Amino acid sequence: MAGLFITFEGGEGCGKSTQIAALQQRLSAAGHTVVQTREPGGTSLGEAIRHLLQHDAAGEGMSPEAELLLFAASRAQHVRQLIAPAITAGQIVLCDRFLDSTTVYQGVARAIDSVKVDNINQFAIGSTRPDLTLLIDLPPEIGLARVHKRSDGQLDRMEQEAIEFFQAVRQGYLALAAAEPQRFHVLDGSQSIQSLQDEIWELVQNKLSASAPL
Amino acid sequence: MAGLFITFEGGEGCGKSTQIAALQQRLSAAGHTVVQTREPGGTSLGEAIRHLLQHDAAGEGMSPEAELLLFAASRAQHVRQLIAPAITAGQIVLCDRFLDSTTVYQGVARAIDSVKVDNINQFAIGSTRPDLTLLIDLPPEIGLARVHKRSDGQLDRMEQEAIEFFQAVRQGYLALAAAEPQRFHVLDGSQSIQSLQDEIWELVQNKLSASAPL
Repeated sequence: MAGLFITFEGGEGCGKSTQIAALQQRLSAAGHTVVQTREPGGTSLGEAIRHLLQHDAAGEGMSPEAELLLFAASRAQHVRQLIAPAITAGQIVLCDRFLDSTTVYQGVARAIDSVKVDNINQFAIGSTRPDLTLLIDLPPEIGLARVHKRSDGQLDRMEQEAIEFFQAVRQGYLALAAAEPQRFHVLDGSQSIQSLQDEIWELVQNKLSASAPL
Repeated sequence: MAGLFITFEGGEGCGKSTQIAALQQRLSAAGHTVVQTREPGGTSLGEAIRHLLQHDAAGEGMSPEAELLLFAASRAQHVRQLIAPAITAGQIVLCDRFLDSTTVYQGVARAIDSVKVDNINQFAIGSTRPDLTLLIDLPPEIGLARVHKRSDGQLDRMEQEAIEFFQAVRQGYLALAAAEPQRFHVLDGSQSIQSLQDEIWELVQNKLSASAPL
Protein backbone atom coordinates (compact mmCIF):
# COMPACT_ATOMS: atom_id res chain seq x y z
CA MET A 1 0.00 0.00 0.00
CA ALA A 2 1.35 3.39 -0.98
CA GLY A 3 1.78 6.00 1.73
CA LEU A 4 0.14 9.38 2.08
CA PHE A 5 1.75 12.82 1.85
CA ILE A 6 -0.05 15.53 3.83
CA THR A 7 1.22 19.12 3.93
CA PHE A 8 0.19 21.87 6.35
CA GLU A 9 0.15 25.47 5.21
CA GLY A 10 -0.78 28.82 6.72
CA GLY A 11 0.56 32.10 8.03
CA GLU A 12 2.67 32.65 11.14
CA GLY A 13 0.95 31.58 14.36
CA CYS A 14 -1.91 29.73 12.63
CA GLY A 15 -1.44 26.63 14.80
CA LYS A 16 0.19 24.23 12.31
CA SER A 17 2.72 22.77 14.79
CA THR A 18 0.09 21.99 17.41
CA GLN A 19 -2.17 20.33 14.86
CA ILE A 20 0.62 18.30 13.28
CA ALA A 21 1.66 16.96 16.69
CA ALA A 22 -1.92 16.02 17.53
CA LEU A 23 -2.50 14.32 14.18
CA GLN A 24 0.74 12.36 14.49
CA GLN A 25 -0.39 11.04 17.90
CA ARG A 26 -3.79 9.96 16.61
CA LEU A 27 -2.36 8.31 13.48
CA SER A 28 0.34 6.49 15.47
CA ALA A 29 -2.28 5.30 17.98
CA ALA A 30 -4.29 3.95 15.03
CA GLY A 31 -1.27 1.87 13.96
CA HIS A 32 0.17 4.00 11.15
CA THR A 33 3.87 4.72 10.71
CA VAL A 34 4.14 8.50 10.61
CA VAL A 35 7.03 10.74 9.56
CA GLN A 36 6.79 14.29 10.92
CA THR A 37 8.95 16.84 9.13
CA ARG A 38 9.14 20.49 8.14
CA GLU A 39 10.39 22.98 5.56
CA PRO A 40 12.82 24.46 5.19
CA GLY A 41 14.62 21.59 6.91
CA GLY A 42 13.85 17.90 7.40
CA THR A 43 17.40 16.77 6.56
CA SER A 44 20.78 17.85 7.93
CA LEU A 45 21.36 19.90 4.78
CA GLY A 46 17.86 21.35 4.96
CA GLU A 47 18.25 22.39 8.58
CA ALA A 48 21.56 24.12 7.74
CA ILE A 49 19.75 25.97 4.93
CA ARG A 50 16.91 26.84 7.35
CA HIS A 51 19.48 28.48 9.61
CA LEU A 52 20.80 30.59 6.70
CA LEU A 53 17.25 31.65 5.78
CA GLN A 54 16.30 32.66 9.30
CA HIS A 55 19.46 34.49 10.27
CA ASP A 56 21.03 37.11 8.03
CA ALA A 57 24.24 36.78 10.05
CA ALA A 58 26.23 39.46 8.25
CA GLY A 59 23.27 41.85 7.94
CA GLU A 60 23.93 42.16 4.19
CA GLY A 61 20.34 41.56 3.10
CA MET A 62 19.27 38.47 1.15
CA SER A 63 18.06 38.91 -2.43
CA PRO A 64 14.60 37.46 -3.18
CA GLU A 65 16.21 35.26 -5.86
CA ALA A 66 18.75 33.74 -3.46
CA GLU A 67 16.00 33.18 -0.90
CA LEU A 68 13.80 31.30 -3.40
CA LEU A 69 16.72 29.14 -4.55
CA LEU A 70 17.65 28.26 -0.95
CA PHE A 71 14.09 27.12 -0.19
CA ALA A 72 14.18 25.05 -3.38
CA ALA A 73 17.55 23.48 -2.49
CA SER A 74 16.24 22.44 0.91
CA ARG A 75 13.13 20.97 -0.74
CA ALA A 76 15.03 19.07 -3.43
CA GLN A 77 17.07 17.27 -0.77
CA HIS A 78 14.05 16.75 1.48
CA VAL A 79 11.99 15.07 -1.25
CA ARG A 80 14.74 12.72 -2.39
CA GLN A 81 16.26 11.81 0.95
CA LEU A 82 13.18 11.63 3.19
CA ILE A 83 9.71 12.19 1.72
CA ALA A 84 9.68 10.03 -1.43
CA PRO A 85 11.31 7.00 0.29
CA ALA A 86 8.80 7.23 3.17
CA ILE A 87 5.80 7.36 0.80
CA THR A 88 7.17 4.40 -1.16
CA ALA A 89 7.51 2.50 2.13
CA GLY A 90 3.79 3.06 2.82
CA GLN A 91 4.27 5.64 5.58
CA ILE A 92 2.28 8.80 6.25
CA VAL A 93 4.34 11.98 5.88
CA LEU A 94 3.17 15.11 7.73
CA CYS A 95 5.09 18.15 6.49
CA ASP A 96 4.98 21.62 8.05
CA ARG A 97 5.07 23.83 4.91
CA PHE A 98 5.91 22.62 1.39
CA LEU A 99 5.86 24.03 -2.12
CA ASP A 100 2.78 26.22 -1.59
CA SER A 101 4.75 28.21 0.98
CA THR A 102 7.30 29.13 -1.68
CA THR A 103 4.62 29.90 -4.25
CA VAL A 104 2.94 32.25 -1.82
CA TYR A 105 5.81 33.81 0.14
CA GLN A 106 8.24 34.31 -2.75
CA GLY A 107 5.78 34.52 -5.61
CA VAL A 108 2.91 36.58 -4.32
CA ALA A 109 4.53 38.57 -1.55
CA ARG A 110 8.03 39.13 -3.03
CA ALA A 111 6.58 39.63 -6.54
CA ILE A 112 8.84 37.11 -8.30
CA ASP A 113 7.40 36.03 -11.66
CA SER A 114 5.08 33.07 -10.94
CA VAL A 115 6.18 31.05 -13.98
CA LYS A 116 9.79 31.21 -12.74
CA VAL A 117 8.74 30.23 -9.21
CA ASP A 118 6.74 27.28 -10.61
CA ASN A 119 9.62 26.11 -12.81
CA ILE A 120 12.04 26.10 -9.90
CA ASN A 121 9.50 24.39 -7.63
CA GLN A 122 8.89 21.69 -10.24
CA PHE A 123 12.61 21.09 -10.61
CA ALA A 124 12.93 20.78 -6.83
CA ILE A 125 10.06 18.33 -6.23
CA GLY A 126 10.18 16.19 -9.35
CA SER A 127 7.14 13.87 -9.31
CA THR A 128 6.49 14.04 -5.53
CA ARG A 129 3.27 15.92 -4.82
CA PRO A 130 1.09 16.27 -1.72
CA ASP A 131 -2.03 14.09 -1.62
CA LEU A 132 -3.72 16.49 0.78
CA THR A 133 -2.91 20.08 1.80
CA LEU A 134 -4.47 21.52 4.93
CA LEU A 135 -4.54 25.32 4.89
CA ILE A 136 -5.18 26.77 8.34
CA ASP A 137 -6.58 30.20 7.56
CA LEU A 138 -6.34 33.03 10.08
CA PRO A 139 -6.29 36.84 9.90
CA PRO A 140 -2.58 37.78 10.22
CA GLU A 141 -3.25 40.11 13.18
CA ILE A 142 -4.37 37.13 15.28
CA GLY A 143 -1.50 34.88 14.16
CA LEU A 144 1.18 37.50 14.75
CA ALA A 145 -0.22 38.31 18.20
CA ARG A 146 0.18 34.59 19.06
CA VAL A 147 3.75 34.58 17.73
CA HIS A 148 4.64 37.69 19.75
CA LYS A 149 3.30 36.08 22.88
CA ARG A 150 5.14 32.77 22.57
CA SER A 151 8.46 34.22 21.39
CA ASP A 152 8.58 36.86 24.11
CA GLY A 153 9.00 39.58 21.49
CA GLN A 154 11.95 37.87 19.69
CA LEU A 155 10.94 37.64 16.02
CA ASP A 156 13.07 35.98 13.31
CA ARG A 157 13.81 37.56 9.93
CA MET A 158 10.58 36.32 8.31
CA GLU A 159 8.40 37.34 11.23
CA GLN A 160 9.69 40.90 11.17
CA GLU A 161 8.05 41.59 7.82
CA ALA A 162 5.32 44.19 7.76
CA ILE A 163 1.67 43.27 8.27
CA GLU A 164 0.95 44.02 4.59
CA PHE A 165 3.27 41.16 3.64
CA PHE A 166 1.27 38.69 5.76
CA GLN A 167 -1.99 39.95 4.33
CA ALA A 168 -0.66 39.29 0.81
CA VAL A 169 0.44 35.83 2.00
CA ARG A 170 -3.06 35.05 3.29
CA GLN A 171 -4.71 36.14 0.04
CA GLY A 172 -2.14 34.16 -1.94
CA TYR A 173 -2.91 31.00 0.01
CA LEU A 174 -6.66 31.42 -0.45
CA ALA A 175 -6.18 31.90 -4.20
CA LEU A 176 -4.11 28.69 -4.44
CA ALA A 177 -6.74 26.77 -2.48
CA ALA A 178 -9.47 28.05 -4.79
CA ALA A 179 -7.47 26.96 -7.84
CA GLU A 180 -6.88 23.40 -6.53
CA PRO A 181 -9.96 22.50 -4.46
CA GLN A 182 -9.33 18.74 -4.72
CA ARG A 183 -5.95 18.92 -2.99
CA PHE A 184 -6.62 21.84 -0.59
CA HIS A 185 -8.87 22.00 2.42
CA VAL A 186 -9.26 25.41 4.04
CA LEU A 187 -9.72 25.27 7.80
CA ASP A 188 -10.81 28.07 10.13
CA GLY A 189 -7.79 28.68 12.40
CA SER A 190 -9.77 30.81 14.83
CA GLN A 191 -11.82 27.85 16.16
CA SER A 192 -10.70 25.94 19.27
CA ILE A 193 -7.66 23.66 19.07
CA GLN A 194 -9.85 20.64 19.84
CA SER A 195 -12.49 21.29 17.19
CA LEU A 196 -9.75 21.96 14.61
CA GLN A 197 -8.16 18.61 15.58
CA ASP A 198 -11.46 16.82 15.08
CA GLU A 199 -12.05 18.43 11.69
CA ILE A 200 -8.54 17.44 10.53
CA TRP A 201 -8.95 13.90 11.85
CA GLU A 202 -12.14 13.42 9.87
CA LEU A 203 -10.55 14.73 6.66
CA VAL A 204 -7.51 12.46 7.04
CA GLN A 205 -9.64 9.41 7.84
CA ASN A 206 -11.70 10.05 4.71
CA LYS A 207 -8.51 10.36 2.65
CA LEU A 208 -7.14 7.11 4.09
CA SER A 209 -10.42 5.26 3.35
CA ALA A 210 -10.45 6.63 -0.19
CA SER A 211 -6.88 5.50 -0.86
CA ALA A 212 -7.19 2.12 0.89
CA PRO A 213 -7.49 -0.98 -1.31
CA LEU A 214 -11.04 -2.41 -1.48
CA MET B 1 32.71 54.25 -18.06
CA ALA B 2 31.21 50.82 -17.47
CA GLY B 3 33.33 48.19 -15.77
CA LEU B 4 34.44 44.82 -17.06
CA PHE B 5 33.40 41.37 -15.84
CA ILE B 6 36.00 38.64 -16.40
CA THR B 7 35.41 35.04 -15.33
CA PHE B 8 37.99 32.26 -15.01
CA GLU B 9 37.01 28.67 -15.70
CA GLY B 10 38.77 25.32 -15.78
CA GLY B 11 39.20 22.01 -14.00
CA GLU B 12 40.78 21.39 -10.59
CA GLY B 13 44.43 22.45 -10.41
CA CYS B 14 44.43 24.34 -13.72
CA GLY B 15 46.07 27.41 -12.18
CA LYS B 16 43.10 29.83 -12.00
CA SER B 17 43.93 31.23 -8.54
CA THR B 18 47.56 32.00 -9.45
CA GLN B 19 46.52 33.71 -12.68
CA ILE B 20 43.75 35.74 -11.05
CA ALA B 21 46.15 37.03 -8.38
CA ALA B 22 48.72 37.99 -11.01
CA LEU B 23 46.14 39.75 -13.20
CA GLN B 24 44.77 41.66 -10.22
CA GLN B 25 48.27 42.95 -9.43
CA ARG B 26 48.91 44.09 -12.98
CA LEU B 27 45.51 45.77 -13.33
CA SER B 28 45.86 47.53 -9.97
CA ALA B 29 49.36 48.71 -10.91
CA ALA B 30 47.85 50.13 -14.13
CA GLY B 31 45.40 52.19 -12.05
CA HIS B 32 42.24 50.07 -12.29
CA THR B 33 39.96 49.31 -9.35
CA VAL B 34 39.72 45.53 -9.23
CA VAL B 35 37.32 43.28 -7.32
CA GLN B 36 38.59 39.70 -6.90
CA THR B 37 35.93 37.16 -6.00
CA ARG B 38 34.96 33.51 -6.40
CA GLU B 39 32.08 31.05 -6.67
CA PRO B 40 30.51 29.55 -4.80
CA GLY B 41 31.10 32.38 -2.34
CA GLY B 42 31.92 36.06 -2.70
CA THR B 43 29.41 37.17 -0.05
CA SER B 44 28.83 36.04 3.53
CA LEU B 45 25.82 34.02 2.40
CA GLY B 46 27.75 32.60 -0.54
CA GLU B 47 30.67 31.52 1.64
CA ALA B 48 28.23 29.76 4.01
CA ILE B 49 26.72 27.97 0.99
CA ARG B 50 30.24 27.09 -0.22
CA HIS B 51 30.86 25.39 3.11
CA LEU B 52 27.67 23.33 2.74
CA LEU B 53 28.69 22.30 -0.79
CA GLN B 54 32.19 21.25 0.17
CA HIS B 55 31.39 19.38 3.36
CA ASP B 56 28.66 16.77 3.51
CA ALA B 57 28.74 17.05 7.30
CA ALA B 58 26.14 14.39 8.04
CA GLY B 59 27.37 12.03 5.31
CA GLU B 60 23.80 11.76 3.96
CA GLY B 61 24.71 12.41 0.33
CA MET B 62 23.60 15.54 -1.54
CA SER B 63 21.14 15.16 -4.42
CA PRO B 64 22.30 16.66 -7.76
CA GLU B 65 19.19 18.87 -7.72
CA ALA B 66 19.98 20.34 -4.28
CA GLU B 67 23.58 20.88 -5.33
CA LEU B 68 22.56 22.81 -8.46
CA LEU B 69 20.10 24.97 -6.51
CA LEU B 70 22.72 25.80 -3.85
CA PHE B 71 25.21 26.95 -6.51
CA ALA B 72 22.43 29.07 -8.04
CA ALA B 73 21.50 30.60 -4.66
CA SER B 74 25.09 31.60 -4.03
CA ARG B 75 25.28 33.11 -7.52
CA ALA B 76 22.01 35.03 -7.23
CA GLN B 77 23.26 36.79 -4.09
CA HIS B 78 26.75 37.30 -5.53
CA VAL B 79 25.48 39.02 -8.67
CA ARG B 80 23.11 41.37 -6.85
CA GLN B 81 25.20 42.22 -3.81
CA LEU B 82 28.70 42.41 -5.30
CA ILE B 83 29.21 41.89 -9.05
CA ALA B 84 26.54 44.11 -10.65
CA PRO B 85 27.20 47.09 -8.33
CA ALA B 86 30.96 46.85 -9.03
CA ILE B 87 30.45 46.78 -12.80
CA THR B 88 28.09 49.75 -12.57
CA ALA B 89 30.75 51.62 -10.58
CA GLY B 90 33.25 51.09 -13.43
CA GLN B 91 35.35 48.48 -11.65
CA ILE B 92 36.91 45.32 -13.07
CA VAL B 93 35.53 42.11 -11.54
CA LEU B 94 37.70 38.97 -11.65
CA CYS B 95 35.63 35.92 -10.68
CA ASP B 96 37.01 32.43 -10.03
CA ARG B 97 34.24 30.27 -11.61
CA PHE B 98 30.78 31.52 -12.65
CA LEU B 99 27.80 30.14 -14.53
CA ASP B 100 29.82 27.99 -16.93
CA SER B 101 31.01 25.95 -13.94
CA THR B 102 27.41 25.03 -13.14
CA THR B 103 26.57 24.32 -16.77
CA VAL B 104 29.51 21.96 -17.00
CA TYR B 105 29.70 20.35 -13.56
CA GLN B 106 25.97 19.85 -12.96
CA GLY B 107 24.77 19.70 -16.53
CA VAL B 108 27.36 17.64 -18.36
CA ALA B 109 28.88 15.61 -15.56
CA ARG B 110 25.80 15.04 -13.36
CA ALA B 111 23.52 14.62 -16.40
CA ILE B 112 20.86 17.13 -15.32
CA ASP B 113 18.72 18.28 -18.27
CA SER B 114 20.56 21.24 -19.85
CA VAL B 115 17.39 23.29 -20.42
CA LYS B 116 16.62 23.10 -16.70
CA VAL B 117 20.19 24.03 -15.78
CA ASP B 118 20.04 27.01 -18.16
CA ASN B 119 16.67 28.19 -16.79
CA ILE B 120 17.93 28.15 -13.22
CA ASN B 121 21.20 29.82 -14.22
CA GLN B 122 19.30 32.58 -16.03
CA PHE B 123 17.08 33.15 -13.02
CA ALA B 124 20.17 33.39 -10.80
CA ILE B 125 22.18 35.86 -12.92
CA GLY B 126 19.43 38.06 -14.37
CA SER B 127 21.05 40.39 -16.93
CA THR B 128 24.61 40.19 -15.56
CA ARG B 129 26.87 38.32 -18.00
CA PRO B 130 30.66 37.97 -18.28
CA ASP B 131 32.34 40.19 -20.89
CA LEU B 132 35.24 37.75 -21.15
CA THR B 133 35.68 34.15 -19.97
CA LEU B 134 39.18 32.68 -19.74
CA LEU B 135 39.13 28.89 -19.88
CA ILE B 136 42.43 27.40 -18.70
CA ASP B 137 42.45 24.00 -20.35
CA LEU B 138 44.49 21.13 -18.92
CA PRO B 139 44.29 17.32 -19.01
CA PRO B 140 42.65 16.34 -15.67
CA GLU B 141 45.51 13.98 -14.78
CA ILE B 142 47.91 16.94 -14.61
CA GLY B 143 45.49 19.18 -12.69
CA LEU B 144 44.62 16.54 -10.12
CA ALA B 145 48.31 15.68 -9.57
CA ARG B 146 48.85 19.39 -8.72
CA VAL B 147 45.87 19.39 -6.33
CA HIS B 148 47.14 16.24 -4.58
CA LYS B 149 50.54 17.83 -4.11
CA ARG B 150 49.31 21.14 -2.63
CA SER B 151 46.60 19.67 -0.40
CA ASP B 152 48.87 17.00 1.08
CA GLY B 153 46.38 14.31 0.08
CA GLN B 154 43.33 16.01 1.68
CA LEU B 155 40.70 16.29 -1.05
CA ASP B 156 37.30 17.95 -0.61
CA ARG B 157 34.01 16.40 -1.72
CA MET B 158 34.28 17.70 -5.30
CA GLU B 159 37.89 16.66 -5.71
CA GLN B 160 37.16 13.09 -4.68
CA GLU B 161 35.10 12.47 -7.82
CA ALA B 162 36.45 9.89 -10.24
CA ILE B 163 38.75 10.84 -13.11
CA GLU B 164 35.95 10.14 -15.63
CA PHE B 165 33.98 12.99 -14.06
CA PHE B 166 36.82 15.44 -14.66
CA GLN B 167 37.26 14.23 -18.23
CA ALA B 168 33.57 14.93 -18.86
CA VAL B 169 34.04 18.36 -17.26
CA ARG B 170 36.95 19.15 -19.58
CA GLN B 171 35.00 18.13 -22.69
CA GLY B 172 31.98 20.11 -21.46
CA TYR B 173 34.07 23.26 -21.08
CA LEU B 174 35.60 22.89 -24.55
CA ALA B 175 32.13 22.45 -26.05
CA LEU B 176 30.88 25.63 -24.34
CA ALA B 177 33.92 27.56 -25.58
CA ALA B 178 33.34 26.35 -29.13
CA ALA B 179 29.70 27.45 -28.93
CA GLU B 180 30.55 30.98 -27.72
CA PRO B 181 33.89 31.90 -29.29
CA GLN B 182 33.37 35.65 -28.82
CA ARG B 183 33.14 35.40 -25.03
CA PHE B 184 35.51 32.47 -24.42
CA HIS B 185 39.27 32.30 -24.82
CA VAL B 186 40.81 28.85 -24.37
CA LEU B 187 44.31 28.96 -22.85
CA ASP B 188 46.83 26.15 -22.64
CA GLY B 189 47.23 25.46 -18.90
CA SER B 190 50.34 23.33 -19.40
CA GLN B 191 52.52 26.28 -20.41
CA SER B 192 54.64 28.15 -17.83
CA ILE B 193 52.93 30.38 -15.28
CA GLN B 194 54.72 33.42 -16.72
CA SER B 195 53.78 32.84 -20.35
CA LEU B 196 50.17 32.19 -19.34
CA GLN B 197 50.21 35.50 -17.41
CA ASP B 198 51.49 37.34 -20.47
CA GLU B 199 48.86 35.79 -22.74
CA ILE B 200 46.07 36.74 -20.31
CA TRP B 201 47.42 40.27 -19.91
CA GLU B 202 47.38 40.83 -23.67
CA LEU B 203 43.80 39.52 -23.96
CA VAL B 204 42.60 41.76 -21.15
CA GLN B 205 44.36 44.82 -22.51
CA ASN B 206 42.73 44.24 -25.90
CA LYS B 207 39.34 43.93 -24.21
CA LEU B 208 39.89 47.15 -22.24
CA SER B 209 40.94 49.04 -25.39
CA ALA B 210 37.91 47.72 -27.26
CA SER B 211 35.51 48.82 -24.52
CA ALA B 212 37.20 52.20 -23.82
CA PRO B 213 35.53 55.35 -25.18
CA LEU B 214 37.27 56.78 -28.27
